[in-house]
Amino acid sequence: MRIALDCMGGDRGPEDLVAGAVQAVSETDLNVILFGDQKKLAASLKGHPVRAMGRIEIVPTTEVVGMDESPIEAIRRKRDSSIVVAFERLKSGEVDAVVSAGNSGATMAAAVRSLGRLDKIARPGIASIFPTLKKPVVMMDVGANVDCRPKHLFQFGLMAAAFSEGIIGNDRPRVGVLSIGEEQGKGNALVRKTDQLFRDSTLNYVGNIEASTTFKGDVDVIVCDGFVGNVSLKISEGLAEAMTVMLRTEINNSLPAKLGYLLSRGAFARFKKRIDYAEYGGAPLLGLKGTGIVCHGRSSAVAIKNAIFVAAEAVHNRVNDRIMELVAQSGDPADHDFPDDEYNQSGAA
Amino acid sequence: MRIALDCMGGDRGPEDLVAGAVQAVSETDLNVILFGDQKKLAASLKGHPVRAMGRIEIVPTTEVVGMDESPIEAIRRKRDSSIVVAFERLKSGEVDAVVSAGNSGATMAAAVRSLGRLDKIARPGIASIFPTLKKPVVMMDVGANVDCRPKHLFQFGLMAAAFSEGIIGNDRPRVGVLSIGEEQGKGNALVRKTDQLFRDSTLNYVGNIEASTTFKGDVDVIVCDGFVGNVSLKISEGLAEAMTVMLRTEINNSLPAKLGYLLSRGAFARFKKRIDYAEYGGAPLLGLKGTGIVCHGRSSAVAIKNAIFVAAEAVHNRVNDRIMELVAQSGDPADHDFPDDEYNQSGAA
Repeated sequence: MRIALDCMGGDRGPEDLVAGAVQAVSETDLNVILFGDQKKLAASLKGHPVRAMGRIEIVPTTEVVGMDESPIEAIRRKRDSSIVVAFERLKSGEVDAVVSAGNSGATMAAAVRSLGRLDKIARPGIASIFPTLKKPVVMMDVGANVDCRPKHLFQFGLMAAAFSEGIIGNDRPRVGVLSIGEEQGKGNALVRKTDQLFRDSTLNYVGNIEASTTFKGDVDVIVCDGFVGNVSLKISEGLAEAMTVMLRTEINNSLPAKLGYLLSRGAFARFKKRIDYAEYGGAPLLGLKGTGIVCHGRSSAVAIKNAIFVAAEAVHNRVNDRIMELVAQSGDPADHDFPDDEYNQSGAA
Repeated sequence: MRIALDCMGGDRGPEDLVAGAVQAVSETDLNVILFGDQKKLAASLKGHPVRAMGRIEIVPTTEVVGMDESPIEAIRRKRDSSIVVAFERLKSGEVDAVVSAGNSGATMAAAVRSLGRLDKIARPGIASIFPTLKKPVVMMDVGANVDCRPKHLFQFGLMAAAFSEGIIGNDRPRVGVLSIGEEQGKGNALVRKTDQLFRDSTLNYVGNIEASTTFKGDVDVIVCDGFVGNVSLKISEGLAEAMTVMLRTEINNSLPAKLGYLLSRGAFARFKKRIDYAEYGGAPLLGLKGTGIVCHGRSSAVAIKNAIFVAAEAVHNRVNDRIMELVAQSGDPADHDFPDDEYNQSGAA
């Protein structure tokens, strides 16, 4: 298995990415192909013993897509950028999957252009795996599709369920739609119309889930549009950071608390690791004829290693084949009754 | 000033509500009128010395709207429920504001029916005040309007700004629209179309704010539709709870950490208080001809006291007059160019 790693994206330079690749090949029999500046990558590899093992290669590229560039335009213009070349090599079969910590919009755009959508998938999207009090949960979409129809949400649920089966190992993943209350009928027009599509399907649908239960781990798949999903993830990241700052401030304000912290810092470190999204292996692009994973721009070496493992698992466990099976089972769900005139009506109150 | 307190809503019975009322009159010269079951309220008041002070009264009511009842129907049927009677008394001028810890949809429905909307306000809504690393921020809407037009979001910003002025004391509150990126043009169709209305206004508009910065306190008002706002609040609540459980588990798993916790528990208690939404005085209903506040169903006595104070401040500082001023300044913002056909287009990627 050969996993491509785009080493030019991200906020921290290629060192952590290369270190993640080295860890990945050290712990498995995977091959990792690094895409990016030949000189920089060769320099980053120095000192790592495993290169001699011959399971890390470099494919030199000359261009870089920046984190703030407009995705579509950058992809069109920068034909020799690491992300574009990586997906071209995936299309031609020279690698089996692509992992990137770069501009997620550009990664999606390059993936869509090179690979194309899976048959009958209306909208590819980005999923996210995050920790809960029980098992990790898969949320989709988390940013690729900000305005959606019911059919899109339904297919997000279907794709995320296939991913949950293949990667988390859930047999009949429980699928819920993120809403403002658990009762059927709660939610905005989009959520209310999506409900019936799931009820008519073979998926293990549990109905609406209230956002406050997101981290309890009572479902395996959380479905939402890309705007709500992106806001949800980022607000959670922001709150986790703010809570850490507040707790540190409170502890620093008192001498006994400082002593206490010294005694409990091991527990704090494990706690920090437990809530660290970076540990969870990145965000898979689903709905494409191929396997791609986007990681956080500040990903650590461990996060990159985990993303490489998730990519390899997705290929090995044929997640895309399973998506196609579920699509075939579900037929072509009709959402023609999603009228424009419902768009602007009030729901609650 | 006479504040009505609906004592029959909430998840915990009238004791905490009555205790909050007692605290409020003890610390100020406010009057609080309790609405609910005469016997239960008289029993709850026993032992509290202040009744003798004559600034707490009971208005007996015979019906109760449950937390799970359908708002509109319950309000129509239960004419002698505490929440309906409280708002009727507000309409007739016998009280100056209403505070409830009951069914928020029913509270909104009763308020709309008794008071009516402020002139030119298309959609009344529910705001929320929550803590950040700096000053508290006001978010609106957090659940009353799940499907919105740009004009509605614009008016949420305007109403929340008036509230931020009157209650938090911000002179020119900074108003931002919750989105998936700070750059102009990021967001779903609704957010993108709302942007121009704010740019054309006299408000201190700072553009999009990314959800990850929500708790940094860099803006004073966060605008969103009621679906996104409700999901954001509830996911934050859920995460804060889950993080607390995870941290406790880590600490319980180690003896030194347990000792450490004993030393630092004061800091933990202050931290818990700092992130406790209940401390922040409830969620104001804005856009109505009168002042109403909804509190969490599990509100403590302190939370109820704070909500009573916020209600009194809102009346005293004429928040509704200020809303009308801002509405007059803004004219009637046009959002006719919010076409139905944009609804289902993809934004990012």
